[in-house]
Amino acid sequence: MTKITIDKNAFPYPMPMVLVGTLVNERPNFMAVGWVARVNFGPPMIAVALGKPHYTNSGIHASGAFSVNIPGIDLMEKVDYCGIVSGRMEDKSTLFKVITGKETGTPMIDDCPLCMECKVVSVVDLPTNELFIGEIAGAYANADCCADGIPEIEKIRPFMLSMPDNRLWEVGDNVGKAWSIGMNLKRQG
Amino acid sequence: MTKITIDKNAFPYPMPMVLVGTLVNERPNFMAVGWVARVNFGPPMIAVALGKPHYTNSGIHASGAFSVNIPGIDLMEKVDYCGIVSGRMEDKSTLFKVITGKETGTPMIDDCPLCMECKVVSVVDLPTNELFIGEIAGAYANADCCADGIPEIEKIRPFMLSMPDNRLWEVGDNVGKAWSIGMNLKRQG
Repeated sequence: MTKITIDKNAFPYPMPMVLVGTLVNERPNFMAVGWVARVNFGPPMIAVALGKPHYTNSGIHASGAFSVNIPGIDLMEKVDYCGIVSGRMEDKSTLFKVITGKETGTPMIDDCPLCMECKVVSVVDLPTNELFIGEIAGAYANADCCADGIPEIEKIRPFMLSMPDNRLWEVGDNVGKAWSIGMNLKRQG
Repeated sequence: MTKITIDKNAFPYPMPMVLVGTLVNERPNFMAVGWVARVNFGPPMIAVALGKPHYTNSGIHASGAFSVNIPGIDLMEKVDYCGIVSGRMEDKSTLFKVITGKETGTPMIDDCPLCMECKVVSVVDLPTNELFIGEIAGAYANADCCADGIPEIEKIRPFMLSMPDNRLWEVGDNVGKAWSIGMNLKRQG
């Protein structure tokens, strides 16, 4: 092996930065999260992994719902603020224009170009984190970010987090077509 | 609400493209995956969500281990090829220089600048996918991608996938420091 062993918690890769919304004690609350992934195709599900001490967790448990809001890079400071301060200490409900998911009643952020409201289908209890798996009950986008009803990433302008360096990154150039460019190798094979 | 309702499976955001490795029928196999996230801080765990029909799933069940390999953009065609062809039909073990994780015996890809070998701790059975949660048993990086023993994302040069448009993206500019730039708002508050 030509590699060196590194700290098992210190592998940087680009994580999408999202805002997870939920009602906590009847007030909308939002938390910045990079530990997020799609987890099921049909029906569509998405999962977020939150450290157990977070204020958000109690709200998701109580309401059975959460939202995943994809912010554009113009919201970067506010998103970061939502990752620094806890809803226990400060009211984050007035930072954004809050809208309510019609399927779940969970708060979403109109300032974010892309929002999904999710019903909790499973909670995986891990040692330091809870993994909330949500079925997407509704998905919404700004009309001016869409072409033929499908949102376009270059109009959404999401950004990413890398850890442990805690740097934020914008999406760069489109460098290829997935499930296509590899066909060159298949033809050679 | 100023938003339009969109298809619940059609929300593009940047997903890191990784190669998931495992032994299947005693042969190393690699699959391209964008549905991946960190899920636990201590001990470090990562999860991958794979469609149930995939060849890889049987190998992870049988071996109890998988690897997550972060490819650089120079491997983009090979990664895409691993997303197009199934190990049932074609031998993908010769595409890369394969190395073996010393903790789990699972195959990893030396060509990738960053590799993690994982022991399965939980499998969540979802309707169309299985979510494999792995504890990171070992993490390895190319020495020339590291500074002070920590890998740097601009040297790893990972790339991302967006769906449903199936486009590949490179990481763009570093636009801010996380858990820091939001302090400006806190001071104003």
